[in-house]
Amino acid sequence: MGELFQCRRVSFGLLVLCLFVSLITVPAVEARIRRYKWEVKYEYKSPDCLKKLVIAINGRTPGPSILAQQGDTIIVELKNSLLTENVAIHWHGIRQIGTPWSDGTEGVTQCPILPGDTFTYKFVVDRPGTYLYHAHYGMQREAGLYGSIRVSVPDGVAEPFPYDYDRSIILNDWYHKSTYEQATGLSSRPFVWVGEPQSLLIQGRGKFNCSLLTSPSLEPGVCNATKPECSPYALTVIPGKTYRLRIASLTALSALNFEIEGHNMTVVEADGHYVEPFVVKNLNIYSGETYSVLVKADQDPSRNYWTAVNVVSRKPVTPTGLGLFNYYPNHPRKSPTTIPPTGPLWNDTEYRLAQSRAIKARQGYIHPPPVTSDRVIVLLNTQNEIDGYRRWSVNNVSFTLPHTPYLIALKENLTHAFDQTPPPDNYDFVNYDIYSVAKNPNATSSSGIYRLQFNSTVDIILQNANTMNVNNSETHPWHLHGHDFWVLGYGKGKFDMFNDPKNYNLVNPIMKNTVPVHQFGWTALRFRADNPGVWAFHCHIESHFYMGMGVVFEEGVEKVGELPSSIMGCGETKGFHKP
Amino acid sequence: MGELFQCRRVSFGLLVLCLFVSLITVPAVEARIRRYKWEVKYEYKSPDCLKKLVIAINGRTPGPSILAQQGDTIIVELKNSLLTENVAIHWHGIRQIGTPWSDGTEGVTQCPILPGDTFTYKFVVDRPGTYLYHAHYGMQREAGLYGSIRVSVPDGVAEPFPYDYDRSIILNDWYHKSTYEQATGLSSRPFVWVGEPQSLLIQGRGKFNCSLLTSPSLEPGVCNATKPECSPYALTVIPGKTYRLRIASLTALSALNFEIEGHNMTVVEADGHYVEPFVVKNLNIYSGETYSVLVKADQDPSRNYWTAVNVVSRKPVTPTGLGLFNYYPNHPRKSPTTIPPTGPLWNDTEYRLAQSRAIKARQGYIHPPPVTSDRVIVLLNTQNEIDGYRRWSVNNVSFTLPHTPYLIALKENLTHAFDQTPPPDNYDFVNYDIYSVAKNPNATSSSGIYRLQFNSTVDIILQNANTMNVNNSETHPWHLHGHDFWVLGYGKGKFDMFNDPKNYNLVNPIMKNTVPVHQFGWTALRFRADNPGVWAFHCHIESHFYMGMGVVFEEGVEKVGELPSSIMGCGETKGFHKP
Repeated sequence: MGELFQCRRVSFGLLVLCLFVSLITVPAVEARIRRYKWEVKYEYKSPDCLKKLVIAINGRTPGPSILAQQGDTIIVELKNSLLTENVAIHWHGIRQIGTPWSDGTEGVTQCPILPGDTFTYKFVVDRPGTYLYHAHYGMQREAGLYGSIRVSVPDGVAEPFPYDYDRSIILNDWYHKSTYEQATGLSSRPFVWVGEPQSLLIQGRGKFNCSLLTSPSLEPGVCNATKPECSPYALTVIPGKTYRLRIASLTALSALNFEIEGHNMTVVEADGHYVEPFVVKNLNIYSGETYSVLVKADQDPSRNYWTAVNVVSRKPVTPTGLGLFNYYPNHPRKSPTTIPPTGPLWNDTEYRLAQSRAIKARQGYIHPPPVTSDRVIVLLNTQNEIDGYRRWSVNNVSFTLPHTPYLIALKENLTHAFDQTPPPDNYDFVNYDIYSVAKNPNATSSSGIYRLQFNSTVDIILQNANTMNVNNSETHPWHLHGHDFWVLGYGKGKFDMFNDPKNYNLVNPIMKNTVPVHQFGWTALRFRADNPGVWAFHCHIESHFYMGMGVVFEEGVEKVGELPSSIMGCGETKGFHKP
Repeated sequence: MGELFQCRRVSFGLLVLCLFVSLITVPAVEARIRRYKWEVKYEYKSPDCLKKLVIAINGRTPGPSILAQQGDTIIVELKNSLLTENVAIHWHGIRQIGTPWSDGTEGVTQCPILPGDTFTYKFVVDRPGTYLYHAHYGMQREAGLYGSIRVSVPDGVAEPFPYDYDRSIILNDWYHKSTYEQATGLSSRPFVWVGEPQSLLIQGRGKFNCSLLTSPSLEPGVCNATKPECSPYALTVIPGKTYRLRIASLTALSALNFEIEGHNMTVVEADGHYVEPFVVKNLNIYSGETYSVLVKADQDPSRNYWTAVNVVSRKPVTPTGLGLFNYYPNHPRKSPTTIPPTGPLWNDTEYRLAQSRAIKARQGYIHPPPVTSDRVIVLLNTQNEIDGYRRWSVNNVSFTLPHTPYLIALKENLTHAFDQTPPPDNYDFVNYDIYSVAKNPNATSSSGIYRLQFNSTVDIILQNANTMNVNNSETHPWHLHGHDFWVLGYGKGKFDMFNDPKNYNLVNPIMKNTVPVHQFGWTALRFRADNPGVWAFHCHIESHFYMGMGVVFEEGVEKVGELPSSIMGCGETKGFHKP
């Protein structure tokens, strides 16, 4: 393993050779190159029975799954066949050690890929686990551009829990309006909110009630509940067998609760890390999170059961998303006669907080966190109005992406490319009332970033607050690129800088890349700034990031190898070449 | 004038100085710099009362008018504020002498402008007349990105016809589906046709019959006939005065007929050239054409009159587009009680052919064509199926745009950037039956171009034919970039290479940049290949060009000055720099 670890640190030019050496010296790790050719294109699809334009990969949404083994090199040749739109794809949960330019975050690590261009993403999947990929440009993720990455353990290495079969599903919410329509509303003055999603999708399938289109639409057949394309996703199981079910959420907005009617689930993995097992009937999952649960097909095998997703944390308007837990040999389209599960109380924050707290690192697989940190950054999450535009802000600064990617700007000293003033490390926690309507008249927009000392330990306190509506606070799932962080604790109300750290879990905190900050609460994280590059950290709700809810961290950019010219071409890197 | 003419030939770097010298030596020509700052952005608009996302310039569609005087330099700083989409704008009818990189044709003369970027177009408007601008990327023109250019004669120079007031209107057709939806259908296998437009617009205003949305839509108020935004365009006139009305068409699909109820129109200009005046009650106008007509407000001034556009050449499904010819001081929203004009018979090809033939150069303003040509290129227009995709072809070749603009590829010898085999100069005119359904099993797609000898005289015969439907031929308005051409003749049936040229009008042919080829007919053009650069020549129907109905001409590219780096950045010009 030491050999492979070193490989991760070398420049990419040497990687193939290095992996080759690994193959010789560490025969257990048979690192392979897995090559994918993807074409990104608009297509008509009916994920929830309503025909709509989606961005598909090789004709599919969700796109093709990446199935790999720890240590493999993934090469995705991405052809942009959109007509006038650029694209970029992020590999969610992959730390991109040594390849920060492959993170796929437009404006942060690369220029967007132009129509007609083919861009090659190349990176190593260095840890087993459940990951995702999705567009990270504009709001293209919502248009259907996403899929799953499953990294298995090396041959001869055992998972710490037994199971018979391995299955993946992605949960999502689905809007009928195009991302253009949504984004235009979000950027309008006054703000126009698209509303709640029309459907919830299980592995890309949902069922919109076509009769809600009060109207025969101008185009007949635009909504048709009998399309095979929107038949419920059936997870077929053999009675008595145990299934590892990898569940991920890529919702645009919704916090979800997942359950399998009549079955318990044992949570064993979160964001690529083993979890000290615990049993649930209902799993809360926030956008950007992944979990593995073990499910035993131990119920009456003469019938099927519902799989169900329900909205939590926001008052549900979107109907339950349904699939089938299909006991073989029952027909996979035979619906149960039981009433579909409606999930827990949507506004039971205590229950969700408790489940968040239950997620701990598994004994034997604990990566102990550093016991102290070098820097504490408190990030107050608020809604603001700036020049009449509705925005989200962090410490009163609403994030705007520059048009020259940070990674290139920092590496090549293009100092005009973004605001050089970093955003503040704190907010006025003495005077700020997190329970009152956010006003923040002095909120500003900025592309400034946090520059972290390389190899330092950083604590982040995500502090939630009231939005611009009375008695309202939203759940925000924050996702960190390029790292996993330790989840040190969750709390209610305003974080107490003096007392709350005393209760940090430094014993067996789970490591994750995405974590919720609950309503009117706080979440404390710790990470090592040990991955040279520039990394986004943002709310994974698509519209929230679009509206400024994010920050960017730089660390050790001077240690980053020579940037591939393929990531350049926009902003100040147009026609860029070294002198 | 000689001084100014020379100015056009110098490199742009010297232009300001040169114009300055002109100012001193030719005081009548007060060439000015006219600077515009435009922001391109998605906005919700209701041009025909139905709310829809459009691409607006500074919040408007049609965009701001460019009003200039002959010899002025236009500078447009175009900021792309679209979220994920690039853009490019073509200055339709402006020959771009000395500035071929400012023609704004994505894939031909420039790379697209990325979101966040500001691109500067700079060119001289060297002739008075009525011109247009519009997006020339993907199908963005249809999304509302267009406007008018009016170039007046220099101070002290008189037009050859008197009038009291000068007014401009652009005619258009309007789809409710997005250009993405349309383009996706066009690129689908099987082909999905969007159908006829929902509305016809006069100066950006139409009226869709909201009750046709059989349905209360999910969003109330999405269609509202009382919005001021879609009140009919009123052309207010003072009784007894004469108006120069500059009429342009930028339809996506439709050939139009324009009339003003009860009024004659005298045609005096076409595409920037003076026309030997002739009187019409109905003006046929094809996408990409501009005309000036003189209209005298000589009818009963106690009422208003309809202005009306109707579809011709295709069986009309789209209702008449209506505006008001408003006699001051009647209220500009007072509709006439008369029945709106329904236009001529839509399928009267003879009538339209006759009107095309009536357009001749005005005495005293005739530019005589060269009496012979150096090369004759016959372009057969057919519909084809290629690999199951519906395409338009020219001599059995369906045009595809490369992702490296030709201008850069040719100037910098990037020979891999496009197909090096030129398309054929002719088709099998002996055996091809233009009246039978096109099959063309050997049709291919290509990005090959025609390379013309510099300063040679080229004849183009546009030959129409049957489409893939029985007894069907469509009208195609072909538009040439970078030049005006002489219109030598129109004919019915198959062009006779031996006899038809004998009837060419070499005496007083009109010069134009856009010309129709009528159903089952031909049109003969002549032009001088005297403008160094690379120039598109294509059907101006947006979907037809998208589906391959175009060619590209190169001439004297070696004489083109150094290309601005701002046009680069895509395809093989990514990070391009001279060695």
